[in-house]
Amino acid sequence: MSSTLDHAIRQKLRAIPDYPKPGILFQDITPVLGDSVLLRDAIGEMAGPFLVAGVTHVAGIEARGFILGGAMAVALNAGFIPIRKPGKLPFKARRREYALEYGTSVLEAHEDAAGPGNRVLIVDDVLATGGTAAAAAQLITELGGEIVAWSFLLELGFLGGREKLEGASVRSLVLL
Amino acid sequence: MSSTLDHAIRQKLRAIPDYPKPGILFQDITPVLGDSVLLRDAIGEMAGPFLVAGVTHVAGIEARGFILGGAMAVALNAGFIPIRKPGKLPFKARRREYALEYGTSVLEAHEDAAGPGNRVLIVDDVLATGGTAAAAAQLITELGGEIVAWSFLLELGFLGGREKLEGASVRSLVLL
Repeated sequence: MSSTLDHAIRQKLRAIPDYPKPGILFQDITPVLGDSVLLRDAIGEMAGPFLVAGVTHVAGIEARGFILGGAMAVALNAGFIPIRKPGKLPFKARRREYALEYGTSVLEAHEDAAGPGNRVLIVDDVLATGGTAAAAAQLITELGGEIVAWSFLLELGFLGGREKLEGASVRSLVLL
Repeated sequence: MSSTLDHAIRQKLRAIPDYPKPGILFQDITPVLGDSVLLRDAIGEMAGPFLVAGVTHVAGIEARGFILGGAMAVALNAGFIPIRKPGKLPFKARRREYALEYGTSVLEAHEDAAGPGNRVLIVDDVLATGGTAAAAAQLITELGGEIVAWSFLLELGFLGGREKLEGASVRSLVLL
């Protein structure tokens, strides 16, 4: 990526102390999304490596992954698959429980969201511990789809999430 | 819109009886989103009327409005504003309570999400009773932004939601 875009995105990130809970420094990306040039350039850079990768679908993870994922799907001439929190999908859904630091969480995908022959790019705003991104990929794989890669706007490298993502490449635009 | 696209979208909508509650026939748009050609053409048609309208921001309503809104923002060279359910935004947020058929609901936007000089297009997947879309526009207006229009993939015309949306134009791609 151009160092100019990297720098511009870092400048626009807003660090929120103790959100969503004490001790966590949350990186708020809404000022990046709100900047028309940064948003366009970020989507362009995120889509670039996959323009000739035969991506048939972009799977976005609820909720911020929907914002980037919808734009990425159009940029890549791909369909969009919503990966949602439990109980939000209207049709028959497959669920996947995964471990968090404390307790567990669940993601769901429609049973017909992907299948054999589909080449799926998983998109989310931030790669943190990697649990959510790994679960999203497992859902798609269970449906018969093939994971091309994971793509993130931001990677919190110190959390080591990348180590949880196996079997495909991991791209992030800005590494913190 | 071309009658071909209109027809193709109608063919892909999946009607789910008694969702989310008994008596409601829910229109599931995920098969439309999952079709690369329909998604691209739908975003193109939705963005078309606003290409020279001076839209500075697209405000997408959580959660399905994020999918279309992110893509619309890039298509219009605009920034993106998330309008979220309560408690989801990390920075100082303004809230707006609005009436539902039974009870009330709340939407929030960051206090710095929009301001004077901003020209905002509100995007969501479906126009139903109009309460959510009206509340989203009120939030933006309270922040000082100007509403250019509302844009929806689908309008459930029999619910009369359009009558709740005043002061700007309302566009929908497919009218049911």
